[in-house]
Amino acid sequence: MAARVRGIAGTVSVWSPSASTRAACADTNWCGAVLEDPLEACRRADLVVLCGPVDRIPPLLRQIAPVCGEGCLVTDVGSTKAAICTAGAAAFPPGHPASFVGAHPMAGSEKSGLAHAKETLFEGRPCLVTPHDSANPSAVGRCRNLWEGLGMRVIERTPAEHDRQVARISHLPHLAASVLCSVLADNRLNDFPAAGPGLRDTTRVAAGDPDLWTAIFVQNREAVREALDAFEGGLERFRAALDDPHDLRTFLSEARECRRALDQDAPAP
Amino acid sequence: MAARVRGIAGTVSVWSPSASTRAACADTNWCGAVLEDPLEACRRADLVVLCGPVDRIPPLLRQIAPVCGEGCLVTDVGSTKAAICTAGAAAFPPGHPASFVGAHPMAGSEKSGLAHAKETLFEGRPCLVTPHDSANPSAVGRCRNLWEGLGMRVIERTPAEHDRQVARISHLPHLAASVLCSVLADNRLNDFPAAGPGLRDTTRVAAGDPDLWTAIFVQNREAVREALDAFEGGLERFRAALDDPHDLRTFLSEARECRRALDQDAPAP
Repeated sequence: MAARVRGIAGTVSVWSPSASTRAACADTNWCGAVLEDPLEACRRADLVVLCGPVDRIPPLLRQIAPVCGEGCLVTDVGSTKAAICTAGAAAFPPGHPASFVGAHPMAGSEKSGLAHAKETLFEGRPCLVTPHDSANPSAVGRCRNLWEGLGMRVIERTPAEHDRQVARISHLPHLAASVLCSVLADNRLNDFPAAGPGLRDTTRVAAGDPDLWTAIFVQNREAVREALDAFEGGLERFRAALDDPHDLRTFLSEARECRRALDQDAPAP
Repeated sequence: MAARVRGIAGTVSVWSPSASTRAACADTNWCGAVLEDPLEACRRADLVVLCGPVDRIPPLLRQIAPVCGEGCLVTDVGSTKAAICTAGAAAFPPGHPASFVGAHPMAGSEKSGLAHAKETLFEGRPCLVTPHDSANPSAVGRCRNLWEGLGMRVIERTPAEHDRQVARISHLPHLAASVLCSVLADNRLNDFPAAGPGLRDTTRVAAGDPDLWTAIFVQNREAVREALDAFEGGLERFRAALDDPHDLRTFLSEARECRRALDQDAPAP
């Protein structure tokens, strides 16, 4: 949708494993062709963007590689990158007519699926582009141009760096929000009618799709465990500070300073 | 501001310990009188609303009680209620010409101060009204009418119930958001430019005033510790589930179910 509006794509061909999604795509004005077979969707494509649960992307890369032709760039939008880029590097080795460069646009919300697509979704948001060791520099440049062309700020990371980083800034917040919901569930009939806007925002992401997030947590388990260790260490520091108003004020002041930096470093578009 | 717009207040008299806040109030169209002495602001008042850090409210209650006259209702907006309502019950005992009934409007944001006041702040939000044991039923009714008159959904709780409940639905989320910011601070120069909207929402409340929140956590320390225990128990269940995709999916599905219930039980206005 965004690529059509911005004139980046000529014809957009779509494949989805879901018949209802395929039917819905066929009814949009940005979709030029809907195909029942992923290989047909990729054959003769200049650009292939794989969007799906992170555990489905590696097998899809292996499946489509034989039909991706000269000059075709394959990228993806998966929230983990090490396993996907390893699979992409193997499926599109040096000498293959097409190239793979992984990406992770940091946009969207707890809502998933075509019904929540909007052409402005990417504007002003960061996109992590994660070239693997054997990535072709010109393919990396084309991948950067694609996401920049959709209005994003591109940041380059190795796949491993990406996974450690998103464990901290995306997977850990999701984990914290889900655990908050989990411990609130017991008292929710009594408590929720009294809840204010803070609880709603703090837990928003916990409404995300459990299948998508299970695959993300499983693929990034090690980095998530490290982030969880750091979080539990922080909770213990907070617990200790509860006994001393001076320490507590310092803790909360530093947290506020950090939160204010977030608004400056990753401004809302 | 809201009371004037809705015709609930005739003349609004303001006292603040801050000279600049008093000057700013004098420039508004809802403020009828600005006073340098809290006793002058309360003398002859029909209604007194104490708004300030939770550790300042008990001494203010003791200070103003001698000048609050026949039929005057005193209430407050503090985020903790046990200590405040104990002080209010002692300062306004049965037989006193005025009455105290504590309240906690669940509205507002991480921003505090007059600059962020808006007349629609309370509309459609919950307000916890917390009568103490010796509260006069007609004063409780007037307190409920006040907050309902400002557009709020009133929920009655005892002060102790209130404190345990907000430890779960407000203080724990604030704690989690602050600890998230604290553990992200080390890598923020590298990480924050890549952050998406999820991190922003999950941590928004951590930008709240550290003085206000230090006083809240200190006054509600015991209930906050209990909520923190439950949260750490939940984190350990999540950690164990990381080893089993089926358990992880169940955990995330239950968390989503709970988050969806929040949207129904405390709908955004």
